[in-house]
Amino acid sequence: MNPPGLDDLLTCLRFPSVSTDSTKRADVRACAEWLVGQLRGIGLSTELRETPGHPVVLAKNQHQAGRRTVLIYGHYDVQPAEPLNEWKTPAFEPTIRDGRIYCRGATDNKGQFMAHLQGVRESIAAHAELPVNLIFLIEGEEEIGSPNLKPFLQKHADELKCDIVAISDTGMIAPGTGTFTYGLRGIACLEFVVHGPSIDLHSGLFGGAIMNPLTAAARLTATLHDADGKVAVQGFYDDVLPLETWEREAWAALGDADAEMLALTGSPALFGEPGYTARERVWARPTIEVNGIGGGYQGEGSKTVIGRTAFVKLSCRLVPGQNPDRVQQQVTDHLQRHTPPGVRLEIKPGHTGQPYRMDPHSAVGQAAQRALHKAFPGQKLALIREGGSIPIVQAFKDVLGADTLLLGLALPDSQMHAPNENYPIENFAAGVRLNQALLAELA
Amino acid sequence: MNPPGLDDLLTCLRFPSVSTDSTKRADVRACAEWLVGQLRGIGLSTELRETPGHPVVLAKNQHQAGRRTVLIYGHYDVQPAEPLNEWKTPAFEPTIRDGRIYCRGATDNKGQFMAHLQGVRESIAAHAELPVNLIFLIEGEEEIGSPNLKPFLQKHADELKCDIVAISDTGMIAPGTGTFTYGLRGIACLEFVVHGPSIDLHSGLFGGAIMNPLTAAARLTATLHDADGKVAVQGFYDDVLPLETWEREAWAALGDADAEMLALTGSPALFGEPGYTARERVWARPTIEVNGIGGGYQGEGSKTVIGRTAFVKLSCRLVPGQNPDRVQQQVTDHLQRHTPPGVRLEIKPGHTGQPYRMDPHSAVGQAAQRALHKAFPGQKLALIREGGSIPIVQAFKDVLGADTLLLGLALPDSQMHAPNENYPIENFAAGVRLNQALLAELA
Repeated sequence: MNPPGLDDLLTCLRFPSVSTDSTKRADVRACAEWLVGQLRGIGLSTELRETPGHPVVLAKNQHQAGRRTVLIYGHYDVQPAEPLNEWKTPAFEPTIRDGRIYCRGATDNKGQFMAHLQGVRESIAAHAELPVNLIFLIEGEEEIGSPNLKPFLQKHADELKCDIVAISDTGMIAPGTGTFTYGLRGIACLEFVVHGPSIDLHSGLFGGAIMNPLTAAARLTATLHDADGKVAVQGFYDDVLPLETWEREAWAALGDADAEMLALTGSPALFGEPGYTARERVWARPTIEVNGIGGGYQGEGSKTVIGRTAFVKLSCRLVPGQNPDRVQQQVTDHLQRHTPPGVRLEIKPGHTGQPYRMDPHSAVGQAAQRALHKAFPGQKLALIREGGSIPIVQAFKDVLGADTLLLGLALPDSQMHAPNENYPIENFAAGVRLNQALLAELA
Repeated sequence: MNPPGLDDLLTCLRFPSVSTDSTKRADVRACAEWLVGQLRGIGLSTELRETPGHPVVLAKNQHQAGRRTVLIYGHYDVQPAEPLNEWKTPAFEPTIRDGRIYCRGATDNKGQFMAHLQGVRESIAAHAELPVNLIFLIEGEEEIGSPNLKPFLQKHADELKCDIVAISDTGMIAPGTGTFTYGLRGIACLEFVVHGPSIDLHSGLFGGAIMNPLTAAARLTATLHDADGKVAVQGFYDDVLPLETWEREAWAALGDADAEMLALTGSPALFGEPGYTARERVWARPTIEVNGIGGGYQGEGSKTVIGRTAFVKLSCRLVPGQNPDRVQQQVTDHLQRHTPPGVRLEIKPGHTGQPYRMDPHSAVGQAAQRALHKAFPGQKLALIREGGSIPIVQAFKDVLGADTLLLGLALPDSQMHAPNENYPIENFAAGVRLNQALLAELA
C-alpha cells in the first residue's frame, strides 16, 4: 500500500512543468495552481504570487510571536525530459518499479518538497498546529537559474523574514544515510575569445606566418593548470580556507569514495590536485574547468582553414574564503599576461556565486542532525559539503540574513537531469519524518 | 558585356558541388554531368568516369602521333561554404561586384579550369584544331584530398600518358603579374580525440576529481609548438631541404611581403619560425596548424558541464625532403607521448600529400614562362613556391612520370576556402589567353 501522500506526489509528477520550455508554460502554471490547492487543503494560508516569469507558491500557517520562523524552499519546475527515447517508461507518467518512482522531477524536486508538505499535513492533522512559524516558498524557475527569486525575496523581505531556511534539494551519500550538507562551492564563470586574422584563412597559403588563434587558445588554456592538476593562476589559492581536521576525518570515515567516483564518471582514471582524495577535491578544493572550447572547422573530415577566432568557456568552482569577483579578476589577469603574441584577447566575464558554509555544530546545525537521526533511525549521519553551487542559498543569506540547512533526499543514482530520474518511496517516507522532526527540533 | 565563356562559368558556379558533404552528393554529380555536356559541345570526346567516390570528367581531342600530349587538370568540387552568415551575397549564387565574381568555387577552381575550357573552345573555333594532343581531366575530390585520383591514374595510365601536366590552381603574387609556381608544400592531416568520462558530467559535482578532456586537448595541442612558433615534434625538421640561395634572392627581389601578409590576414602581427621572412615561412618551411578544435558546450552563455570528449583537427604542411607518412607517424608518436593522465587518446589519420618541386629553368619551364609573358604582356614574371598542397602533382609525377606546370590565376585576396571567395573577370580573360599561348608554346 502506498504511504499517505504518495498519490498526491504522483499527481504532482504528471504535470510536465518544464520551466525552460515556453510551449509548456500552461503546464507549469497548472502545477503551481494545483499546489496552491494542496497547501490550502492542509490549512495553510496560500497565494500564487506572480513574477516576470513563472509564479511563486507562498504558504504560511498562523504566525505567532516568540516562535522560530522556518522557511522551507522547494521548486515545482523540472528539467526537460529529452532525450525521450532513453526513458524506459514515459517521462511524465510516474511508474513504480522496485520501490522507486520513475518520472521527471521525482527527485528534483517534487519528491522532496512533497515529503515536506505531507509532513506538515500530518503534523497539523495530529496536533491542529505546528511548533513553528512556517513559510513554504515553492518557485517555478530553479532549473533556469532562479532569475526572479532574488528580486522576489527583496520585494517581500518583510513577509519572508525567517530564522532559518530548510531545503531538500541535495544528495544523500548512500541509501539510508541521512546527509547534512553544510557547504557548497561558489562559482565564477568567464569566457575568453582569441581573435587572430580578420577572416578565416587557407592554412596552406598562410600557415606558418601568423599565430593561429586555435593554437593560441589551446596554449593559453594550457597555462591554467600545472601538469599535476593544480591551478597555476597567481593568487588563486591565497584565500582558500583549508579543510579542517575534523572534516577530513569525518569524510574519510564515510569510506573510500574513489571507486564510486570512478564508476560514476566512467573516466579512465581519477586525476586532480595532489594531496587530496577525490571527495576532498570536489567538496572542498577549488578548480578551473573548461566547459566549452571551439574554433575553426567543426564538421566531418578535414578543412584546411585557419579560423579567425577561438573561444574557451571557463568556470571556476570556489570554496569558502575565496571571493568570486577577485578570482574572476585573477583569471583575467592571468589570461592577459599569458596571451601569446600575434593575437588579441577578449574576456567576457560570466555569472558568479559565493561559496557557502555554515557550522553544522551550531544550535540549528545540531537540531538538523537530531532531525536526520529521527528520519533515518539507527544509522550514522554524514556531514558533507557538495561541489555544486546553489546560488539561492546565498540569496537567502544576503536578503533575509538566514542560514540554510541542506537536508537532501536524492541518491547518487537518482539520475537527476537525466533520463529515468527516480526516487525511492522510502526516501519519501523518510522526508515526511524528517520534516516533522525538523520542525520539532527547530521549535 | 561579359567576355565569351563567362556565362558558362556562372552556370558552373551555381552547382553547390561540396565534395566533403554527403548530403550534396547529387549536386556534385550534376556538376560533373553538366561539364561533360560542355566539353562535348566544343568537340572533345568526353566521358564521365566513375570512381569509388565522385566521378572524373575526362575529355580528349583527336590525338595524333608525333605531337606533344598536354594534360590539363582541374577540379569541379569546392570547399564547404560555411559560415554562411559571413557571405555578403549567397555562397552559391555568383554575383559580380567591381569586376569580380563572388561565389564559392569562383577561384578555387571553377574560374580557372573554365578559362582553359574557353581557351580550347576558342582555339578549336578559330583553327578547327589544337596544336597538341589534349587531355582534360577534371576531378571531383580535390578538396577532400583526391583519395581516388591516384588509383584512377594508375588504372588508366595508358590513356592518360602525357608529356606535361598544366594546372591553374595556384596564385599570382599580384594582379597582372604572371606567376609560375615551381614548388608546393605537402600535407599530412590528422585528427585526435580526447576521451574522458563516459557521459557529460556536472562540473560542480565532479570538477577537480577527473581530467577534463577539453583541458587535456588544449594541453596536448600546446605541446606541438615552442613558444617562438617552432614545431616541437621530435624529428619534424630532420628531412627538410634548406632554401637555395637563388630562391631567397629571387623572392626578396619580389619586394617585402610582410606588410601585404599583414594586410591580407588582418592579424594583429606576423608570427612564426625565427630566421625566415613571412614569405619564406609559408613557401618553404613546414608548419603544424590547428584547423578545428571543439568540445563541451558550444552555445551562448555558460553551461557548467564537463564534456566527455574533445577533438582537435591538425594539418601539417610539409616541404621538399619531408615524407608525409613519416611526419604523420612523428606527430602520432608525439601526441601519444604527451597525452595527459586520466584520458584516452584516439588518433584518426587523415589524408597526406607529397611536397613538390620542379626546375623552372628546364625546357618546359621556359615554355611556361613564355606563355605567361603572352598572357600578361609587358609585365615581369614571378618564380615562386606556394604554401598550399596539390597532392595530385606528385601523383602525376609518380604514375605518369610527368612534371606539372603550375600557372595559377588566383589573387592574394581571392578568399579561397573562406567566405566571399571571388575571382576577377580579367583573370578569366587572362586564363583564356594563357591556355592558347601555353598550348602553342608546348606544341
